[in-house]
Amino acid sequence: MATLGDIGVAATINILSAFAFLSAFAFLRIQPINDRVYFPKWYLKGLRSRSLHTGAFVSKFVNFDFRSYLRFLNWMPAALQMPEPELIEHGGLDSAVYLRIYLIGLKIFIPIACLAFAVIVPVNWTNKTLEHSKLKYSNIDLLSISNVPLGSNRFWIHLVMAYTFTFWTCYVLKREYEIVAAMRLHFLASEHRQPDQFTVLVRNVPPDPDESVTQLVEHFFLVNHPDHYLTHQVVSNANKPSELVNKKKKMQNWLDFYQLKYSRNPSQKPSMKISLERDKVMCSSKSVIPAAFVSFKTRWGAAVCAQTQQTRNPTLWLTDWAPEPRDVYWDNLAIPFVSLTIRRLIIFVAYFFLTFFFMIPIAIVQSLANIEGIEKALPFLKPIIEVIPKTIGISIPMKATFFITYIMVDGWAGVAGEILRLKPLIVYHLKNFFLVKTENDREEAMDPGAIGFNTGEPQIQLYFLLGLVYAVVAPFLLPFIIVFFALAFVVYRHQVINVYNQEYESAAAFWPDVHGRIITALIVSQLLLMGLLSTKEAAQSTPLLITLPMLTIWFHRFCKGRYEPAFVRYPLQEAMMKDTLERAREPNLNLKSFLQIAYIHPVFKEVEESESDPASEESDQEPVLIPTKRQSRMNTPLPSKHSGSMTSLG
Amino acid sequence: MATLGDIGVAATINILSAFAFLSAFAFLRIQPINDRVYFPKWYLKGLRSRSLHTGAFVSKFVNFDFRSYLRFLNWMPAALQMPEPELIEHGGLDSAVYLRIYLIGLKIFIPIACLAFAVIVPVNWTNKTLEHSKLKYSNIDLLSISNVPLGSNRFWIHLVMAYTFTFWTCYVLKREYEIVAAMRLHFLASEHRQPDQFTVLVRNVPPDPDESVTQLVEHFFLVNHPDHYLTHQVVSNANKPSELVNKKKKMQNWLDFYQLKYSRNPSQKPSMKISLERDKVMCSSKSVIPAAFVSFKTRWGAAVCAQTQQTRNPTLWLTDWAPEPRDVYWDNLAIPFVSLTIRRLIIFVAYFFLTFFFMIPIAIVQSLANIEGIEKALPFLKPIIEVIPKTIGISIPMKATFFITYIMVDGWAGVAGEILRLKPLIVYHLKNFFLVKTENDREEAMDPGAIGFNTGEPQIQLYFLLGLVYAVVAPFLLPFIIVFFALAFVVYRHQVINVYNQEYESAAAFWPDVHGRIITALIVSQLLLMGLLSTKEAAQSTPLLITLPMLTIWFHRFCKGRYEPAFVRYPLQEAMMKDTLERAREPNLNLKSFLQIAYIHPVFKEVEESESDPASEESDQEPVLIPTKRQSRMNTPLPSKHSGSMTSLG
Repeated sequence: MATLGDIGVAATINILSAFAFLSAFAFLRIQPINDRVYFPKWYLKGLRSRSLHTGAFVSKFVNFDFRSYLRFLNWMPAALQMPEPELIEHGGLDSAVYLRIYLIGLKIFIPIACLAFAVIVPVNWTNKTLEHSKLKYSNIDLLSISNVPLGSNRFWIHLVMAYTFTFWTCYVLKREYEIVAAMRLHFLASEHRQPDQFTVLVRNVPPDPDESVTQLVEHFFLVNHPDHYLTHQVVSNANKPSELVNKKKKMQNWLDFYQLKYSRNPSQKPSMKISLERDKVMCSSKSVIPAAFVSFKTRWGAAVCAQTQQTRNPTLWLTDWAPEPRDVYWDNLAIPFVSLTIRRLIIFVAYFFLTFFFMIPIAIVQSLANIEGIEKALPFLKPIIEVIPKTIGISIPMKATFFITYIMVDGWAGVAGEILRLKPLIVYHLKNFFLVKTENDREEAMDPGAIGFNTGEPQIQLYFLLGLVYAVVAPFLLPFIIVFFALAFVVYRHQVINVYNQEYESAAAFWPDVHGRIITALIVSQLLLMGLLSTKEAAQSTPLLITLPMLTIWFHRFCKGRYEPAFVRYPLQEAMMKDTLERAREPNLNLKSFLQIAYIHPVFKEVEESESDPASEESDQEPVLIPTKRQSRMNTPLPSKHSGSMTSLG
Repeated sequence: MATLGDIGVAATINILSAFAFLSAFAFLRIQPINDRVYFPKWYLKGLRSRSLHTGAFVSKFVNFDFRSYLRFLNWMPAALQMPEPELIEHGGLDSAVYLRIYLIGLKIFIPIACLAFAVIVPVNWTNKTLEHSKLKYSNIDLLSISNVPLGSNRFWIHLVMAYTFTFWTCYVLKREYEIVAAMRLHFLASEHRQPDQFTVLVRNVPPDPDESVTQLVEHFFLVNHPDHYLTHQVVSNANKPSELVNKKKKMQNWLDFYQLKYSRNPSQKPSMKISLERDKVMCSSKSVIPAAFVSFKTRWGAAVCAQTQQTRNPTLWLTDWAPEPRDVYWDNLAIPFVSLTIRRLIIFVAYFFLTFFFMIPIAIVQSLANIEGIEKALPFLKPIIEVIPKTIGISIPMKATFFITYIMVDGWAGVAGEILRLKPLIVYHLKNFFLVKTENDREEAMDPGAIGFNTGEPQIQLYFLLGLVYAVVAPFLLPFIIVFFALAFVVYRHQVINVYNQEYESAAAFWPDVHGRIITALIVSQLLLMGLLSTKEAAQSTPLLITLPMLTIWFHRFCKGRYEPAFVRYPLQEAMMKDTLERAREPNLNLKSFLQIAYIHPVFKEVEESESDPASEESDQEPVLIPTKRQSRMNTPLPSKHSGSMTSLG
């Protein structure tokens, strides 16, 4: 039961710290020495290198161009300027769609907040329930549902608002699902020719006494997909040569560092070993895994094979879309099926017991939450509690002030801290000072990794839950959430443009989960409102309130049927269209040569490359710390006209 | 708390009534007058007609062959003699697999009962809990878990038994799933060439301003399945001519009856009308529904099209396997998609409110089930209840005697009543006496319909639930259940062979549901045991008991992954194999002519047939009640060597 003053103090502290973070960032980012911490994405794309800063030695580390200090908040509008299609090309569809989740927050909560402040706040405020009760309350509690007397007819207004908010949320969700599905389909349709469009991963090839795996695969697909099969690549367990390659890489690094010009022995030795191991792996049938990447002549053929069952036994000849080559986790392909099943059972058991034993602390809290339980455990609280008969409906909305403080700490200051990248900044400079020996090392030290979908998304979901739960109950929480969504949107858009490097592209395959979780939050909020109103003796509204989650579930099923297939299936018409276009444009395309090496184990690829053009020879003639315009493995577009970081510095 | 004597009385009554039903059946079935009630299946297959009984007029109604009275119980072994492959050919795979559910009951419960009587019964019996308590109890209650004292170490034996029973049940279920899946695949593989193997039902063809539905369908499949598309048949809304055809049929019947030899007007008129209506329907684009049956050159092509998504929009060009022609419900194909969606929403809402308001009576019962609630509602029960502290663990097993009585009434006498077919017997004779005018009418009066999966299956599931719940708690219930399963198996096997006529064949597609429901019963039984043991102060066994449903759920998921695909998907290898074989055997097969008329609306088919060979002309020359060897529309196999009904009568 924090007072308005308490919230004011918390807000001041958090706004000040957020502002401090943002100012520190604005200052640090224009120092050349931090360039690789705040703009690694541009280095990785090969659009920026250290050679930009020529001149005095000191100006390599500190920015003496005082004009740039005047424009130091430029990054905010700059982060918003890059249009979405360019953002998709620059940062990948996954990142662009991830940013849309923050946008949805704004789209849902800004209209809801306006309506809530126009309708619910006056309705709550013009009562005298709290004034007449013996509870302690602050001014802002007068704006919450706590201030409406028991059994009041005014609850009908809250009910109508709950319906309105639900319909609005569902409308926004439906539109977004539609847009994201269209974006995904457009992205897939406009993708360049890629090996994974033609390729299917086949697992659990059954053992055959007469034929090797590669023969078996070829025969099977020649028989069952006679018009479409093109070629295949068996998967080998190359974990051993893989280790050697890692070892070689380390050696190579030391070689670079010591500049041992004519003694190539330390690097040559593992390379020889690797060649031997590779031949061993390639020849021995033991290291061949009963799995293969099978490529087809057309996308249509691959789509058919990936989406159908091949044989009677559904655990043999399992086919699925091949992931793109850089997304293959080669070590895991070697795990046999039996082991996989057992691992799944173990995880299942562990998950169950985690959930089950988690009930123990919850049960304890539950027993305390029971008012009588509190009385017994903490008898000194008795006078406060006994004021009872129906304060639950009053005290729950009062918890809002706790969450407001939480939002300010985690959502405001936390997001501002994200842009400062304090930990990567320190780690990079420490590494740079103590560990970095070669350009390779520096690249590794600078590597920002991918944006953390796995931690960011649950955080967003918490805010959706809070917003939806408190929209009807205590709407004064909404502005704080809106500020979070707006700030996070700008900050993460900046980070996607300038910092993070997407590892691989799922083409927004995660969207059905995002949608489903917001729906869950919506249903939780409806159930809580139902419980709350029943304690406020407004039980006559229950049937209408039950209808609400029911309609929401139906809406979810509708969306699942209408939009989810775009995320899990690949329609044959699309495949046929791309095939036909390609055949018309490039009638003489040699697809086989394009696909034959796409899914070779990276170890063999690297060995072949290093054998054909030995990189070690190049390193002899060049200085150690030469800035290279290293081409990223991703497509490299032209530099953006709207890229804020380029205009403010270059 | 029935005593042993009470159960004995109930058993006597029910065994006597079951025996009376069986005797009455044995007597009635060999009277020729009832032949069409007890052996309609053989009439429908064309293997039996009234001409079998020649001789005196009276012997057409009453059986004077006294030797047959001596063999009157022959039907029981006879029903068991027909081997399963022949049964499948005779009664369809659905019926044969349905009978296996009763067999599973025997396979699960006979070993469980043996083990329970060898282990659990002695363990329960050698206690003196009930003797020392103030509860009323009968001798058989001494055999139940009620007789084990609180917190006894003997509960470990019950725990071990619960594990054993679960493992045994899962083992039987897994084996059966395997067998049924193999039976289904074998059945599908050995099926003759049928139109539904090559055909896909396409719904939601989008409207096009320039092309008619039939043009659109042809173009779409020529483009997207160029190598496989063969032909198609659009679906028309023929509900209006359909009504006229029904009218015509009635007229035809009256015509037969009155033998109006030269005045064909009453039949001719609707026939004319029908032709007009048909032309109207076929020409008008309004009555064409945006749906079509599309046929492919190969099973492979159809399997691909049926199991993939065609276009971006997952609500357009919906493809699915075509049902076999006699399984198409033509009237429903005309329902537009929007209407279907709305109907689904209405059903969803209705289902929800049914479940929701069902909670009200349950809540009332629940409040009574609360012991204190009973005390308040029925104060005179106080002395009995106050005996309380922990009789729940004692009184629940005592409910077993109620269920024993239930099993004897519903399971024993009820199943014996099923074979007597008292209602069809009376209805048939009444109809035969008052309504039957023509041979057609007689066939309709005799029609036994299909076996009632929809009512029979839930009944079996109740017995599975009872058996599994009481296996550990009160095993003396098991023999009663075993008798039910054995009796029902024999009776329904007899009925499948001699009475019921399968309408269409789903190739045992219902099996995953059967499996899932037995698993549910198993989990319910485990949860109830957990609750029971916790009231018996054996809570230290809880972690081990929680593991049990968890393992069961895992087993279910395993079975789902391993066997369910056989029931929902059609593997490409199978399709390719059948295609290749067929091409080798019949290289000059004209598939198009075979498929072109397969999916024409039955109304048009009948009109065409009646126009080409007018049946009305035949009826002129023949007497009204001529016995026809009507060929069934199903495949007619040779009469069975093992068919009990044939040997006992013929």
